[in-house]
Amino acid sequence: MRVTKDPEVRKGELIEAAEVLFREEGYRQTSVSDIVKKVGVAQGTFYYYFQSKDEVMDAVVDHYIDSYRRALEALLARGDVDPCRKVEIVANTALALHRYDPRLAEFLHAEENLATHQRYIQKSIRVVTPLIVAIVEQGKAAGTFDVEYPRESVEMMVYAFMYLADAVAEAGNQGRYRQTIQAAEDILARVLGIERGRLRLDPSAAGSVLPLIHARQAEPEA
Amino acid sequence: MRVTKDPEVRKGELIEAAEVLFREEGYRQTSVSDIVKKVGVAQGTFYYYFQSKDEVMDAVVDHYIDSYRRALEALLARGDVDPCRKVEIVANTALALHRYDPRLAEFLHAEENLATHQRYIQKSIRVVTPLIVAIVEQGKAAGTFDVEYPRESVEMMVYAFMYLADAVAEAGNQGRYRQTIQAAEDILARVLGIERGRLRLDPSAAGSVLPLIHARQAEPEA
Repeated sequence: MRVTKDPEVRKGELIEAAEVLFREEGYRQTSVSDIVKKVGVAQGTFYYYFQSKDEVMDAVVDHYIDSYRRALEALLARGDVDPCRKVEIVANTALALHRYDPRLAEFLHAEENLATHQRYIQKSIRVVTPLIVAIVEQGKAAGTFDVEYPRESVEMMVYAFMYLADAVAEAGNQGRYRQTIQAAEDILARVLGIERGRLRLDPSAAGSVLPLIHARQAEPEA
Repeated sequence: MRVTKDPEVRKGELIEAAEVLFREEGYRQTSVSDIVKKVGVAQGTFYYYFQSKDEVMDAVVDHYIDSYRRALEALLARGDVDPCRKVEIVANTALALHRYDPRLAEFLHAEENLATHQRYIQKSIRVVTPLIVAIVEQGKAAGTFDVEYPRESVEMMVYAFMYLADAVAEAGNQGRYRQTIQAAEDILARVLGIERGRLRLDPSAAGSVLPLIHARQAEPEA
């Protein structure tokens, strides 16, 4: 007997399957038939929701950005987390992006996907920046940060950290890697008007919101 | 009688003519025959030096970058210019790029030229950044700047100022424009460890190296 699912649920299943396949097998190696096979539906069902593999890629990235947004909203709402710690989490996330999802990074850095990459960067900055500004304003209101231009400071740092994420990903030797991280700590402390040393960055998955984004099946944090 | 010119001189004339036409008429509106007509040579001469209009565009941008490099080298060598003033000039130049050459900016911001644009950005950053680092290190040695990580600070600021240049170009109303400039002054002062107010930005042509780059026919400064 055929079970007719809610269209949104079905669409979500296709996006989720595509996300897993893109991450595990790579974007180019994944075909539409791989995606439908994983979900157990016909090709026609895929094309009912998406015009192409590109379109499901857009949906996958929208899903990433949306999860990131929700993670930042949750972080913003936490009254028990110190503003410095919140900024550390956001900065670690920015620095770890490449390493957490190397296949997505590889896809986005291919020259033929440059327009897609730029579109994703612009979109995520638009969604994410206001929440980081809100976190910085929270810290300013609490007297922790001494920032005169929260919006511009955050926007400039978001761009600077995109460069840093590349530098961190490329830093082969440990010395260069440590130096880049320490420089990021130093500059963030200056921009936020806090004492050097109150902020420690470590772009390992532990201190970032990324595991939260990926572990959708996981239980909510206690 | 036909005058045979030095090949490098001829090539330079073609690049110069292309540069003027691209700036005045726009890249898309300029054809190879417009370029050769302006120089007064046959089409074959153009194709002896360049494979396509794209290739002469690359040469035009290389020329820009090279002029920018020479202007920064001259600035670095000036013993009579205060380090803060040097940084102001560099920052004003970065902020004014779009406005000085709107047609080039328009060309580079078209989606079909994204790969070209990215290549130019990477190339100019590679050429220009070490010189700005040298300027900051000069100011540090003179005791003007209090910077712990000159290289990383400059690299982060170069990226942040690319965003700022877009923001400044888009800031329609004067209030938003002033706020962006003041935020840039504030953040630069923090990163360089100088007192707020020692640095004043004004991305008009006056305080930037751009007129120097464009006015190649002009007399050298006394």
